[in-house]
Amino acid sequence: MPRVTCDISVSMDGYSAGVGQTRELPFGTIAHNRLHDWMFERPEENEAEVAAILEAGAYIMGRNMFGPDRGEWDLDWRGWWGDEPPYHHPVFVLAHRERDDVPMAGGTTFHFVTDGIHAALERARAAAGDLDVAIAGGASTVNQYLAAGLVDELRVHITPTIFGAGERLFDGVPPQAFEQVSSRGTSLVTHITYRPVR
Amino acid sequence: MPRVTCDISVSMDGYSAGVGQTRELPFGTIAHNRLHDWMFERPEENEAEVAAILEAGAYIMGRNMFGPDRGEWDLDWRGWWGDEPPYHHPVFVLAHRERDDVPMAGGTTFHFVTDGIHAALERARAAAGDLDVAIAGGASTVNQYLAAGLVDELRVHITPTIFGAGERLFDGVPPQAFEQVSSRGTSLVTHITYRPVR
Repeated sequence: MPRVTCDISVSMDGYSAGVGQTRELPFGTIAHNRLHDWMFERPEENEAEVAAILEAGAYIMGRNMFGPDRGEWDLDWRGWWGDEPPYHHPVFVLAHRERDDVPMAGGTTFHFVTDGIHAALERARAAAGDLDVAIAGGASTVNQYLAAGLVDELRVHITPTIFGAGERLFDGVPPQAFEQVSSRGTSLVTHITYRPVR
Repeated sequence: MPRVTCDISVSMDGYSAGVGQTRELPFGTIAHNRLHDWMFERPEENEAEVAAILEAGAYIMGRNMFGPDRGEWDLDWRGWWGDEPPYHHPVFVLAHRERDDVPMAGGTTFHFVTDGIHAALERARAAAGDLDVAIAGGASTVNQYLAAGLVDELRVHITPTIFGAGERLFDGVPPQAFEQVSSRGTSLVTHITYRPVR
């Protein structure tokens, strides 16, 4: 049965983004390269983990992961990823305002879901078919799915930096126990896979 | 040259203790076994990491790690560890009130330091000689030494649970970069060793 997975890169203190997001600063005013250098600077060391991120059949993300605009949609904005986003599958964006689908090259289409995380998951499951659904981020979206007990496999990528402020993984998530399924360190990151004890 | 090391077990969300510490509940009202089962239930899997904790020549801890009393000393209280604590070396307890040394069996003596973290470190260095000084905890004490840039090697032991509240590692520690020196997972924990980038 397809699962709900989630990959998220965090600092030692659990932040996945800083404050002050703008069009030029998708992660706000932090040294965000420290969160993602393991992917982009050392892909050969982390091949399996990078591949796993892209194995899902549908993705769910928060509006702030989709774009820097707030309030009414900036209809010229089509995501941070250029003409051909790396998802190659449907992406469901949690939003408060309706917006028409945004089809991109390479199989990614952004759909906008205004009726909550459960509805988004239902649509993503239907779109993913036999493949997993991935919660793509940011932390606030991940935390909502964790709090609702809807994540089957959480893959945290811990990077060697303290940020001290920003969007924090696990904020507002109630106490719960996990099983540590696997754990592996490479030079710039530690990958830990958790499954909830149900 | 001897270093300042620090070992601390934390939950996925960074807590090393809960709230509500009492004589019966040194870690407060959390399932603290989940923080420490790797040491006590699976010592054979984690032999190197357990051994490293006990290699220092002197230890520094906060008052709440020494005991549950607050305000005036409860002079009958001699720590959580019975007659022969596992340290076998001098332990410097950060405190606001003077107290005479408390010598224990096996080489541990508790000394009480009322003039701050730098003074405690100076006394611990002198006592440790050629061996490292270890910051034993809790999180609040570790955070003070991290914030002051005084920790040479931080060994975090991340355990598969979310606590949601309590004493949190890295609270109040300013943004900084580390090098991930090593990372290793066993069945109940991931051990990561960090050194500050200076």
